[in-house]
Amino acid sequence: MAHLLSTSFSVKISSSNRPCCQPLNQVRTALRSSFTFKTSKSSFKRLVSKGDRTRKSCVVLATAAPVSKEVSANPRSGSDESRSDSSKPQRVMVIGGDGYCGWATALHLSNKGYEVAIVDSLVRRLFDHQLGLDSLTPISSIHNRLRCWKAITGKTIELYIGDICDFEFLSETFNSFEPEAVVHFGEQRSAPYSMIDRSRAVFTQKNNVIGTLNVLFAIKEFREECHLVKLGTMGEYGTPNIDIEEGYITITHNGRTDTLPYPKQASSFYHLSKVHDSNNIAFTCKAWGIRATDLNQGVVYGVKTDETSMHEQLCNRLDYDGVFGTALNRFCVQAAVGHPLTVYGKGGQTRGYLDIRDTVQCVELAIANPAKPGEFRVFNQFTEQFSVNELAALVTKAGKKLGLDVQTISVPNPRVEAEEHYYNAKHTKLIELGLKPHLLSDSLLDSLLNFAIEFKDRVDTKQIMPSVSWKKIGVKPQTVPAN
Amino acid sequence: MAHLLSTSFSVKISSSNRPCCQPLNQVRTALRSSFTFKTSKSSFKRLVSKGDRTRKSCVVLATAAPVSKEVSANPRSGSDESRSDSSKPQRVMVIGGDGYCGWATALHLSNKGYEVAIVDSLVRRLFDHQLGLDSLTPISSIHNRLRCWKAITGKTIELYIGDICDFEFLSETFNSFEPEAVVHFGEQRSAPYSMIDRSRAVFTQKNNVIGTLNVLFAIKEFREECHLVKLGTMGEYGTPNIDIEEGYITITHNGRTDTLPYPKQASSFYHLSKVHDSNNIAFTCKAWGIRATDLNQGVVYGVKTDETSMHEQLCNRLDYDGVFGTALNRFCVQAAVGHPLTVYGKGGQTRGYLDIRDTVQCVELAIANPAKPGEFRVFNQFTEQFSVNELAALVTKAGKKLGLDVQTISVPNPRVEAEEHYYNAKHTKLIELGLKPHLLSDSLLDSLLNFAIEFKDRVDTKQIMPSVSWKKIGVKPQTVPAN
Repeated sequence: MAHLLSTSFSVKISSSNRPCCQPLNQVRTALRSSFTFKTSKSSFKRLVSKGDRTRKSCVVLATAAPVSKEVSANPRSGSDESRSDSSKPQRVMVIGGDGYCGWATALHLSNKGYEVAIVDSLVRRLFDHQLGLDSLTPISSIHNRLRCWKAITGKTIELYIGDICDFEFLSETFNSFEPEAVVHFGEQRSAPYSMIDRSRAVFTQKNNVIGTLNVLFAIKEFREECHLVKLGTMGEYGTPNIDIEEGYITITHNGRTDTLPYPKQASSFYHLSKVHDSNNIAFTCKAWGIRATDLNQGVVYGVKTDETSMHEQLCNRLDYDGVFGTALNRFCVQAAVGHPLTVYGKGGQTRGYLDIRDTVQCVELAIANPAKPGEFRVFNQFTEQFSVNELAALVTKAGKKLGLDVQTISVPNPRVEAEEHYYNAKHTKLIELGLKPHLLSDSLLDSLLNFAIEFKDRVDTKQIMPSVSWKKIGVKPQTVPAN
Repeated sequence: MAHLLSTSFSVKISSSNRPCCQPLNQVRTALRSSFTFKTSKSSFKRLVSKGDRTRKSCVVLATAAPVSKEVSANPRSGSDESRSDSSKPQRVMVIGGDGYCGWATALHLSNKGYEVAIVDSLVRRLFDHQLGLDSLTPISSIHNRLRCWKAITGKTIELYIGDICDFEFLSETFNSFEPEAVVHFGEQRSAPYSMIDRSRAVFTQKNNVIGTLNVLFAIKEFREECHLVKLGTMGEYGTPNIDIEEGYITITHNGRTDTLPYPKQASSFYHLSKVHDSNNIAFTCKAWGIRATDLNQGVVYGVKTDETSMHEQLCNRLDYDGVFGTALNRFCVQAAVGHPLTVYGKGGQTRGYLDIRDTVQCVELAIANPAKPGEFRVFNQFTEQFSVNELAALVTKAGKKLGLDVQTISVPNPRVEAEEHYYNAKHTKLIELGLKPHLLSDSLLDSLLNFAIEFKDRVDTKQIMPSVSWKKIGVKPQTVPAN
């Protein structure tokens, strides 16, 4: 891919890194040796533990603990009594754990007492550089994030930096960490990004489909009991004129009946990549006995979780731009900077939404209640439905309470989608497992708006309008001109 | 892919090539300059017409006509009166035109008066070398095939050798040939091949999905009116317990009704790649107005068509091995060499089948009656349903008539599939367009068996048994040991 450099990195770690959480005096004493390679358990670790010898991929154990403590290997972090049931999975690999949902999930699981490893190529940060974008919130490097987490909580999150499309790298992470569950957020996750140009469309499908195939092969080969928790999207279903069920639909046709995969009508190369993944995973569950949960997630809003709120260096990213920003988050930032809310087309587009605090809760529920061997389980992961016009009205109302003058404009829809349609999607399975939803409330909107106001000086208003057209996508690589 | 070398070739053509069809005295005089690069029309052609200068990809116009005639560029071959309707497409690009179905189709279309170009990386021939396999029939090089075709019929088929996953190459073929229809056979088409190892699974999905994405982008960018005729497979549907419709099904659910894509349940990484393609194509029809016909083809049998029978150098390939051989063809070869017919499992597996003479007829019907702009049309392309046990019984009966002692054995099923199931698939749309089926008859089986007997000394009996297991596929690259 011409627009990518390499997604496999080699990192040299120095022990002279500045402790990350200096304001927190109480944890300073633990920070003497802020980084070390892990030296136990597998031949792979032996490979990378010998200082500067050639490394084929980078596996880093980020920890603020001294080496002498670290080599005592894999203490059950165990501070959370809810993890006392030894039959439940303990070791969870979070692929894409440096991203918006992945980071919040990794911290949540670590806080709940799971042993967590993050696997990430960090390519999401590269996309920002290449497109001239940035998170509303300043985010720390993954290394500093993990150092800070260790300093505050005493909990270690392992870090493997590399590309899961590189099977040799992925194999090594599996054999090193030995996960009991894999949460797979590690995909290019923006529909507009996948519609920028041919190169990004191809990258999105190749990256997402091959990465997931590799995860499936790694589970089959190395960890056949491992439960795959895969992030899909509600966008896989499109907007059919009948109720959307959770993954399957029972059809009676010409006097016979069968329960079949729910028909999919995805509407971007990104959404299609998730449909491809779902089909591939379903096959491997049947053929190989893989256990998998496909979380068809709605549009996520919010930024704070219990864990990311603990320290500014743990702060999550918040995207408001036309490529990575999603509806509600983008509207709040627009309101904060006095930009009209940008409703695409008629605004009747209705989707499922959820608070990021529910994302992390849902993933934990899926892990704690794993699919059976051979089962391909699909949950629709959202809590409420809204149309774009409804969201704009809610943000307008909340903005007024804070003294903001919020306007709304309709902009030509850059997407190809129905702007007025029936939409009724089921979402009961996660509730049945115990999900306690954080429904969208005035207080959440106040909080999100205040958050956006706090960082409004970081907003690049040139990035707000949609810049990617579903119809105009061409074969020429698109670059962002410097302004 | 470690098991592939390169799929983009650079070919130097010498004018001293031996005329290919020497037995045919009447055409010898036309063969003086048997090969030339095309020198007209586009900058790309200019690039490759300058002798030995560096070529980024190879575009070869294979022709037996003298250069002086050739540069008069694009005569409508026009010998077939059925092509007199100028509103119908004239220039058809056949991607994968060196393969089993592609070769027969390219000749058929050329014979019917279409201007035909073959685009092929020839990688299918490389697979045979790598796996130690060979066609039952000896097949000529693509260059000799086309020379022979020109010598016999006076018709030119252009040849572009390269990989459609290389978009630069594909762009050049589009801008050079300017197709009005593209028939896309250019995919890795074996389910067992896709289940050999991780590397081949990934190759199959990457090659098929990205190749098709590139074709869609090429049509959008360069030839927006061009009709895509894409080979899918009946295997996309799996074996649901309800009737299989042609691409779509009308569902009434909770009091509401919609017509949606028929649910897919593919059962190999190959079949899944075709499902991914179908979903991608459907999206581009909707978003970009692409016109496309998806031919969900059944299992093809037979080897001769009117055109491939004209000369031994035009002979089609016939695969009988455990990787590329399909049920009926394989059974005929087994009967011819006295090998028991290998029924996988219980043999109740039922599928749609068709004669290769109907494959070429169906493709021509799809081209002559193109989809409308924005239409994603799905035809189930087969003529009869048989179970594996029924096929074995038919071959046993036909073999006895020829004095063969035909035995049948059940071998453990290497696949994961239902061995007894309901199966009723609709296939009326091509009939409505005018398809006159060649139903499986005693005479066809006699002919196929006699053909197999003629070449039985070329059979490598070690290649007959299934060698690929759906459940045992691993991550280690598999090689075929020399025996």
